[in-house]
Order: sequence, then C-alpha cells, then structure tokens
Amino acid sequence: MKNYYAIIMAGGIGSRFWPMSTSKHPKQFLDILGSGQTLIQQTYHRMLNFCLNENIYVVTSSEYEDLVAKQLPQLPKQNILSEPARKNTAPCVAYASYKIHQLNPQAITIVAPSDHLIKKEDTFSKAVKSCFQKAEKENCLITLGIKPTRPDTGYGYIQFKDSDTSEKDNRMFKVKTFTEKPDHEMAKFFIESGDFLWNSGIFIWSTKSIIAAIEKHDAELANVFKEGIDVYNTAEERAFVSKAYITCKNISIDYSVMEKATNVYVRSSIIGWSDLGTWGSLYTHIGKDKKNNAIVGKNVINYDSKNCIVHVPKDKLVVIQGLEDYIVVESDNTLMICKKQDEQQIRNFVNDVKVLKGDKFV
Amino acid sequence: MKNYYAIIMAGGIGSRFWPMSTSKHPKQFLDILGSGQTLIQQTYHRMLNFCLNENIYVVTSSEYEDLVAKQLPQLPKQNILSEPARKNTAPCVAYASYKIHQLNPQAITIVAPSDHLIKKEDTFSKAVKSCFQKAEKENCLITLGIKPTRPDTGYGYIQFKDSDTSEKDNRMFKVKTFTEKPDHEMAKFFIESGDFLWNSGIFIWSTKSIIAAIEKHDAELANVFKEGIDVYNTAEERAFVSKAYITCKNISIDYSVMEKATNVYVRSSIIGWSDLGTWGSLYTHIGKDKKNNAIVGKNVINYDSKNCIVHVPKDKLVVIQGLEDYIVVESDNTLMICKKQDEQQIRNFVNDVKVLKGDKFV
Repeated sequence: MKNYYAIIMAGGIGSRFWPMSTSKHPKQFLDILGSGQTLIQQTYHRMLNFCLNENIYVVTSSEYEDLVAKQLPQLPKQNILSEPARKNTAPCVAYASYKIHQLNPQAITIVAPSDHLIKKEDTFSKAVKSCFQKAEKENCLITLGIKPTRPDTGYGYIQFKDSDTSEKDNRMFKVKTFTEKPDHEMAKFFIESGDFLWNSGIFIWSTKSIIAAIEKHDAELANVFKEGIDVYNTAEERAFVSKAYITCKNISIDYSVMEKATNVYVRSSIIGWSDLGTWGSLYTHIGKDKKNNAIVGKNVINYDSKNCIVHVPKDKLVVIQGLEDYIVVESDNTLMICKKQDEQQIRNFVNDVKVLKGDKFV
Repeated sequence: MKNYYAIIMAGGIGSRFWPMSTSKHPKQFLDILGSGQTLIQQTYHRMLNFCLNENIYVVTSSEYEDLVAKQLPQLPKQNILSEPARKNTAPCVAYASYKIHQLNPQAITIVAPSDHLIKKEDTFSKAVKSCFQKAEKENCLITLGIKPTRPDTGYGYIQFKDSDTSEKDNRMFKVKTFTEKPDHEMAKFFIESGDFLWNSGIFIWSTKSIIAAIEKHDAELANVFKEGIDVYNTAEERAFVSKAYITCKNISIDYSVMEKATNVYVRSSIIGWSDLGTWGSLYTHIGKDKKNNAIVGKNVINYDSKNCIVHVPKDKLVVIQGLEDYIVVESDNTLMICKKQDEQQIRNFVNDVKVLKGDKFV
C-alpha cells in the first residue's frame, strides 16, 4: 500500500449548484446530499480504503486551503497542494505527479475529483485496486468508465475496443476514442451501440507512466513542471509553483494527454457514480417522497407539490404548496426558485447576480 | 378637537398573512407595504389628523403592549389599553368607551382597526370629520362604507336606504341591513343592486351613543364593563379589566350592537381602502412590474415569472424563474411558496405548523 497515492482535485467552483455552491464555498465543501459529510470528506474517506493517510494529496485553489484543512483535519498540512490560479486538470495532474514521483518513483496514483458521488464504495474499491495492480505492472493510463444510463450531452464518452483476452480483469478495455459532450443524436447513437462508457474523470496510473505521457503528448506543459524537479518537497516548492501556474496553459488532462495517448484503458465500473453536476443529477440520487419530491431539510412541509427538489438549511421552516417540477434552494440567505427544465440557466443567474449585486452572493 | 378621540384596535393576529404575520408579531406591527411605516404607525398618524395625541387610545393584547409602545413612542403609555384575552371587538369597544366616557362625557370617538390600508388620507379625514360632526349632534352610530368593486365573499355588506334629504352630507345614508360574508351569488346580487356598501369596520359615534346602544342591545356585555365606572382611569383599572375579560363573552360589535340598532348610518367613502386581509388583497394595492409581479424586497431578480407576489427581507437575495401566479414570502427564517388561488389554505398551514413544529414559527 505504501506505493499507492491519491490526488484529490478540489479546485472547482461548481457554479451550476448555486446558490448552495458559491465561489467562496464550492460544492465539494458542502453536504449536498444531507449525509452528514461534505463531498470532499466522502472522497477522502473513500481513498483511505486503499491509500495511507500520508499518501493522500488534495490539490486546490489557494483560497480553499483553509477549508480543506478544516474539513480534513487528519490530512497532513503539507499534503494540501495550493494552485495559485485555476488552470483546469492537466496542470494539476502534472504538478502533483512530478511532486509525488520525486518522493517515490514507484508511486501509483488515483486522480479523482472531490465533488462526485460514488454510492457503491466496495465495488469502487475493488475496481481501483484492480487498476492499481495493472498500473503497477505496465506503462498504461486507466480511466474509470461508467455504463451510461441516458444520452446525457453533458458528459464525455469513451469508446472501447472488444475485451482483450489477455486481460485478467474482464471489465478492462483498451480505449478507442474519447468524445467530449456529444450532441443528443450522437449521444443516443453511442448508447445504442453499446461500446461507449461515460468518462468519470477518475484516473489511475503510475507517476512514471503519466509523466512519460505528458512529456510525449504535451511537451510544453511537461517543461513547465519538470523544471521544478529539484524544488518539489522543499521550502522553494511554493514559490516555484506560483510562477509555473502563471506560465502554464489552461487545459484538461483529457485534451492534453488522454485523447492522444495509445496506452489508455478503461475499467468499466458499476459504482453508483454521479458527477453531481446539476440539481437535476442530484435529484436522481437522493430519496424521494410519495409525490417524487427530493427534499433535503428538516422542516419542509409540502402541500400538493410534485417532482420538486427542495434543499434548505435544517433550521429553516419551509412551506411549499402547488409547485411542480421546481428547484427550491436556500443557502446563506439566498433563495433560488427555478424550473427543473431550465436549470441550465443557473449559470446565467450567477453571472447576472455578480453584475447586479457584486461578488457577495456568488 | 379636544372632544375627539380615537380607539385603535390592535389585538388581531392576521394569520392569513403568515409567515410575515405571526402571533408574536402580527400584521399591524409590520411594514407589509414596504412603505417605511408599519400599519399601526400609519393608522396612528392618520388619527393625528383629527385627534390630539393624548386622545388616541390603542387597545391590544397584553402580549403586544411592548410592541405598541415601541412602535408608537409618542403615544402616552397610559393610552395603551391591554386586553388580557382575545374577545373580538365588542368587549374592546365597551371597555374603551366606558373608560373614555368616564374621562370626558362629551367624547366623540372613531373606532378603527390598526391593520387596514387607506390610500386617500385626505378624503378619509374629511369623511371622518363630517361623521364626527353628525355624531356630536345626534344619538347615532356611524360606520364608514366602501363602494364595493367586486363580489368579495370575505366582507360584510351594508344595505342603505335612499339618501335622506334632511342630511347635509349627501353621502350619509341610513342603514337598512347588515349582511356578514354572503355567498358569491348573493354578493353579486348586492353589487348589481347598487345599494350595498362594504363594511370597513371603522365606526364613529359619541361614547354616550355607543354606551346607550350597548346597554340597550347587549345588556350582558354592558353590565360587565359598566361595573368598572368607578375604577376606570385609576390604579385599579387593570385588575378590574382582567376579571371583566374572563367574564365577558367573545362577540363582535356588529353582532352585539350594529345589526340590532336602528340609529345606524353609513358614510359612503372613496378612501382607497383595503382590509389587507390576504396576500391577494395586498397584491392589488402595491406597484407591479411589467410582468405584473408585485415585489417587496430590494434584491429580487426575476426571470420569466408573472403575476406573482414576492415579499422578502431587504437584505435577502432571491432569484425566481418561471413562476406564475404564486405567492413567495420569506419572513423570520420561514419561507412560504403558495399558489395565489390557494391562499385560503394559509390558515391551514399555520395550524399544521403549530401542530408539527410547535409555537415557534406561528
């Protein structure tokens, strides 16, 4: 286990979950599900199933360092890696991978978002362990793939090749193509063809393999973070990273590496996954009452409302009557009421609020 | 002016305006209209147009004494009359009338609810002054009547006789009948006939006339409060009233006296009146935006909502999208969303909340 590492990515702002999720207190730091744990706490505890505490790293925006430290008090402080700017996932992966590789050249890492839902923890652990074993033995990049249940146009899709009979794990497939956010027609076609999975954004690889892949497929990015080899895990690391993040481009690991690499595998997993990207996706994952309302809040009284999502603070009394297919969210003295079918507008609300009322509420 | 007195009735709990109006802080103590003044403050200032400050009395529940004192700091403390129990309007009128009559047997009083809206203050003042003059000269009971604009089934209706040519004020009519809350058909008939007015619940009479009327038409009630003649305006008044309110029945002045008396007049008045009995009645009295939303709140952002009433605290950010014909009210950390057409259910909400959550929220 000492070679197994986790890199938890916790720099996002989750604006589609506004007003619960704000740039000051994003989704990963919230108990969106009303479970008693925030999403990052759930993610951290999930990683402890196959990683030692000291091998878990959280990469986050500098402004969330304190939040991470507060929510994960057991995590060693030096394992919180601070990003001075939001540059998407590739710089985050590059930075953490070079740093961990410098500590332990045998390192195998799982890279995972901090704000996803995984309901089947045991199946997830088994899947990750089998990926770790493969990543230990060969130069490969593995992603967890999710069996799609609907032609969602918000996800990335992975086309896989027929199972290689040499694979011990019969749910491990070679990847043929990545397709980011297809249109509805194409998404439907993907689902019907049966050889596509959703890209969960959870990756497993050795630091050796990912570093080699970055150096091969995105030399520009590699050069930025390679330069720090002598300062990672020293007092100069922070200053170096500050400069590196100014220089480096904004790019996802999918575009930077995964779509180009040829040694990519996908592990098909039934882990009760959701990226909890929107209120609608939350709706499908929490308990409903008899009238199909998903209600988080201890003091919500409903009369004749159907198919609603209500997410309000515990101490708040809320009486709703005659609402159908609405999202009602109250957080931090901000209330949002929006039709479920129009939830894509929430991003506009956030922008408008910013313009009209300033940063205070977003 | 020294003989003119006002009795402001401020003991109601306004449960149809929940959650803004609660039994701890009822409607009359709220700035329902967002005007900068609470309804009782508006009522008090209205009375100052024809009464001296020391001649204004407020009758309220003992639990609201402090609220009255706080909201009307100019009002002499001894002019706040405390009712130890809610017994409707007749005991309130009897108590205040005997007490004021004991101070000044020439007293002419206006009796008015504390939680009504009157938009045309000047016309109101003129109407009241003409009633005062009539009440000064003869033994009569006058009520202000409002020209009805719709067949509302929530109001009392007053049928009047053709104008008496001996009346100087050609809007003063002898009353024929009182009808409390007719059904819709009857209300329509009343409106069409043209000889009915709404009963505003605002009365003008001399203490001499009303005391004579109570003694004649409701001897039981009269006997309770007559007994106190020697203690009104003394240190023993409070103890006497406590006992009197235990003894006396719960009855409105309309049932107790007005419907039986024969010396009743109605002054037809166009004073922009509303009893603000419901959110719906408020809707008709506050400004609307282009989409017919009546919004009280400084930080409400609306997308595609129509015909709604939104009433929220100033500091609260509220984003509503796609709502049509709803009432959205937030007050004291309680949120209510209800279809406008179902607002009669609000009383049930209040009862249910009381049962489910206790007195805290109602």
